[in-house]
Amino acid sequence: MSTVDLPDVQRSSPTHRLPINRVGIKGLRYPVRTEVDGEPESTVATLSLSVLLDPEERGTHMSRFVESVESLGVVSATSLPAIVRDLAQRLNTREATFEASFPFFLRRAAPESGASALVDYEGALRAVLSNDGEVAVKVIVRVPVTSLCPCSKEISDYGAHSQRGYVAIEASPASADLDVAELVSVAEAAASAPIYSLLKRDDERRVTMGAYDNPAFVEDLARSVAASLTAHPKIASFSVEIENQESIHNHSAWARIS
Amino acid sequence: MSTVDLPDVQRSSPTHRLPINRVGIKGLRYPVRTEVDGEPESTVATLSLSVLLDPEERGTHMSRFVESVESLGVVSATSLPAIVRDLAQRLNTREATFEASFPFFLRRAAPESGASALVDYEGALRAVLSNDGEVAVKVIVRVPVTSLCPCSKEISDYGAHSQRGYVAIEASPASADLDVAELVSVAEAAASAPIYSLLKRDDERRVTMGAYDNPAFVEDLARSVAASLTAHPKIASFSVEIENQESIHNHSAWARIS
Amino acid sequence: MSTVDLPDVQRSSPTHRLPINRVGIKGLRYPVRTEVDGEPESTVATLSLSVLLDPEERGTHMSRFVESVESLGVVSATSLPAIVRDLAQRLNTREATFEASFPFFLRRAAPESGASALVDYEGALRAVLSNDGEVAVKVIVRVPVTSLCPCSKEISDYGAHSQRGYVAIEASPASADLDVAELVSVAEAAASAPIYSLLKRDDERRVTMGAYDNPAFVEDLARSVAASLTAHPKIASFSVEIENQESIHNHSAWARIS
Amino acid sequence: MSTVDLPDVQRSSPTHRLPINRVGIKGLRYPVRTEVDGEPESTVATLSLSVLLDPEERGTHMSRFVESVESLGVVSATSLPAIVRDLAQRLNTREATFEASFPFFLRRAAPESGASALVDYEGALRAVLSNDGEVAVKVIVRVPVTSLCPCSKEISDYGAHSQRGYVAIEASPASADLDVAELVSVAEAAASAPIYSLLKRDDERRVTMGAYDNPAFVEDLARSVAASLTAHPKIASFSVEIENQESIHNHSAWARIS
Repeated sequence: MSTVDLPDVQRSSPTHRLPINRVGIKGLRYPVRTEVDGEPESTVATLSLSVLLDPEERGTHMSRFVESVESLGVVSATSLPAIVRDLAQRLNTREATFEASFPFFLRRAAPESGASALVDYEGALRAVLSNDGEVAVKVIVRVPVTSLCPCSKEISDYGAHSQRGYVAIEASPASADLDVAELVSVAEAAASAPIYSLLKRDDERRVTMGAYDNPAFVEDLARSVAASLTAHPKIASFSVEIENQESIHNHSAWARIS
Repeated sequence: MSTVDLPDVQRSSPTHRLPINRVGIKGLRYPVRTEVDGEPESTVATLSLSVLLDPEERGTHMSRFVESVESLGVVSATSLPAIVRDLAQRLNTREATFEASFPFFLRRAAPESGASALVDYEGALRAVLSNDGEVAVKVIVRVPVTSLCPCSKEISDYGAHSQRGYVAIEASPASADLDVAELVSVAEAAASAPIYSLLKRDDERRVTMGAYDNPAFVEDLARSVAASLTAHPKIASFSVEIENQESIHNHSAWARIS
Repeated sequence: MSTVDLPDVQRSSPTHRLPINRVGIKGLRYPVRTEVDGEPESTVATLSLSVLLDPEERGTHMSRFVESVESLGVVSATSLPAIVRDLAQRLNTREATFEASFPFFLRRAAPESGASALVDYEGALRAVLSNDGEVAVKVIVRVPVTSLCPCSKEISDYGAHSQRGYVAIEASPASADLDVAELVSVAEAAASAPIYSLLKRDDERRVTMGAYDNPAFVEDLARSVAASLTAHPKIASFSVEIENQESIHNHSAWARIS
Repeated sequence: MSTVDLPDVQRSSPTHRLPINRVGIKGLRYPVRTEVDGEPESTVATLSLSVLLDPEERGTHMSRFVESVESLGVVSATSLPAIVRDLAQRLNTREATFEASFPFFLRRAAPESGASALVDYEGALRAVLSNDGEVAVKVIVRVPVTSLCPCSKEISDYGAHSQRGYVAIEASPASADLDVAELVSVAEAAASAPIYSLLKRDDERRVTMGAYDNPAFVEDLARSVAASLTAHPKIASFSVEIENQESIHNHSAWARIS
């Protein structure tokens, strides 16, 4: 039985003639090339792709999504519009979405010793092609930071609890070349201290005292990041969410501005 | 040093006078009582609570969120509005959110033997109190089902691949007594076969043949659930998302109607 | 076709006549009753059960594992031996394992205000029935704690980084009534400070200063817990693993004594 | 205050003079180069490193673990012994462990169309340097497969439930050049059908019928993989665990031979 003879069940008529806003594949892990701080970087992404399905068509063509992934070049804020338009064309539809989530790395030098190592961040790039032909792009990061509690510092004779926090930013770029590393910089600048992978003793001293000198509530972090993003020339709109994994509780404090 | 003498750092003025849409706690695990199929059920929930913070206030009062959780009675679609209003009152604000996610269980009898056991489902109840004083409630479920591929069945001389799928429904109730079990029924009715925890051999025969007789694409599942929810008298609006953990791939097929 | 006529494929001969050490079900979520601090507690467990399969039998009888779960009474260190023996009997075999993992809760009063709320812990109970008829029981907990770094404190003029850590203990009881709450006490006593869900301002002051007064490396925590467990009359043997989710790094420090 | 003046708290005496079997870092994500099917491959690994700590030393030197990671060359079964010996030397100890877990990819051509795409697998490489100077290496994979139930096929007039399963192999190599791809081949040969990322309609027909022609219980899979690994010239010893994510249940069937 050859391919041409096999019935194309997907093209039959559906029982319920409803449009499906998004249909496709998700959870596909694939090696991708992206750009971080202007440099090419290879990473492993988790991909989600979808298209609009018209009321008259029963099924989409799932294998074409994987073919689209196979043909990916560099995945960046700049290339996303072409990627999602290509996907729509392959599936013969007007609306489509593409999202790649991936770890990325930046080299960080410790503040005193200068010893350097890579810090890992979570990034994502999302594109939504709408019926009007426009592509909405989102550049997304999740950045680990140190936060130190201002209340704990103020009310205690000594010490102050600190913890690991995460700054999640979702930005609509005003400029196509918005880089995930630029969002990392905004997040780290708002924190009590940035995170490092490698710290020697004199670095740890500086980071400890620096965090104590810069206490920040989850609310302070959210507002500080929001103020920076509002003023950022490459960012049109954004949401920011902070999650502090409180060291004195087994739950998180969080704040969101959108 | 007594409490009254400790400085209230949260009440000081923030550097950036921005409102914060949501600030509170998340990831708090707590035993809660809910209602499933009209019956009381004890479960363990993961809770997320937040309030609006005005531009002039630096911080919220995190301990009050936990006090609010401590005072929870039964958490159900019916009780959610009072819960979220109580939260807003405790925090002296106009906007608030409350969300509880939890596993819940329904007893399912196998179709031939009648042998019964519990099947686990994911549920969530979400309430958002807006500035206008209105509370928007969502009743959410994630239901495991069996799906069998119509294309695989049609193009093959024998056999057809099947897999576990998940039907996720997010419903705005038109009636305050919308029960998570009612959403489970909608999801299972659309599937190739419902899931059971306990099947004897003659049950497995019936489930196997039943699934083969009712093949359904991820698109069919989404449309069938959407049609049922549209017609459901207790549901005002909804979104549905299907995820099939394909047995022939290491990624999922998915479809979403909203 | 009635049940008696259906072929019992599991009883046919396997191609490779090898014994299978463990075969059964895992990832079954079920409501269970356990005991915490001597009191009955309802929770939701994730269950894993297995038996030995002889070289001559092709398959086990999966439905009997679920029937075994359906008939569970209270799951505790005391009841585990009977549970795993019953499982072996149902499956007509000499070796069997049973494991239940579940969250459990203890009410904790804040150290100054006395305000109280529940703290969540991870527990597990494991039983292994061996060929010699003996049952080995393990009582397992994972306890969140606060840890404050002694090096950071010592080398800095002020402040010291703290973070959330987890103390995981796996204990073979010398006494059948070993309670998960007793292991929690050991873990919390070794920490810089215990975790609370609810802290008012004067509590936070006390916890902050208490942690600063009790700095502990991941190594200190491991040794302190190990020393307590060695001296514990109800514990025959143990392993302990500490994981500190460092607030100055995006990775953990860990230590293990076994 | 310069580095030389800072007190070295780690070198002070511990309260409890107990050896610590393993102390180090875990959860460090780092880009690494490995070898897959004899070819170099870049991936993102999650790393765990530890050393033995003598009873007289209070703390290890955490930054040296990260320095060790910074200096990593290719991570493979062949290079692991040198990596873990280097780690022990940096930390001035006799025992050490190194483990890298990472996704890796193999290009798979669909069986009829020849269309090809990458399939993702989980791999891990572990090395344990013991007191006697020997290094024990483990090569670990987790391979997605299709499994089709022999009982369901036999007792039903038509159809048979299938699902995604995972074959986890942990092998001690007899030959230093044991490649993760060789373990994948063993796992896929035992399955009802291998997994593909990209299948056209005629491929799906072949895979569907192939799985129906090769039904396999979780027990069959475990024994078949065990028989292959026993006969494999590059493997000294192993354990294998199969997990089938049953499409008719919301739990897994599993089997383990070790």
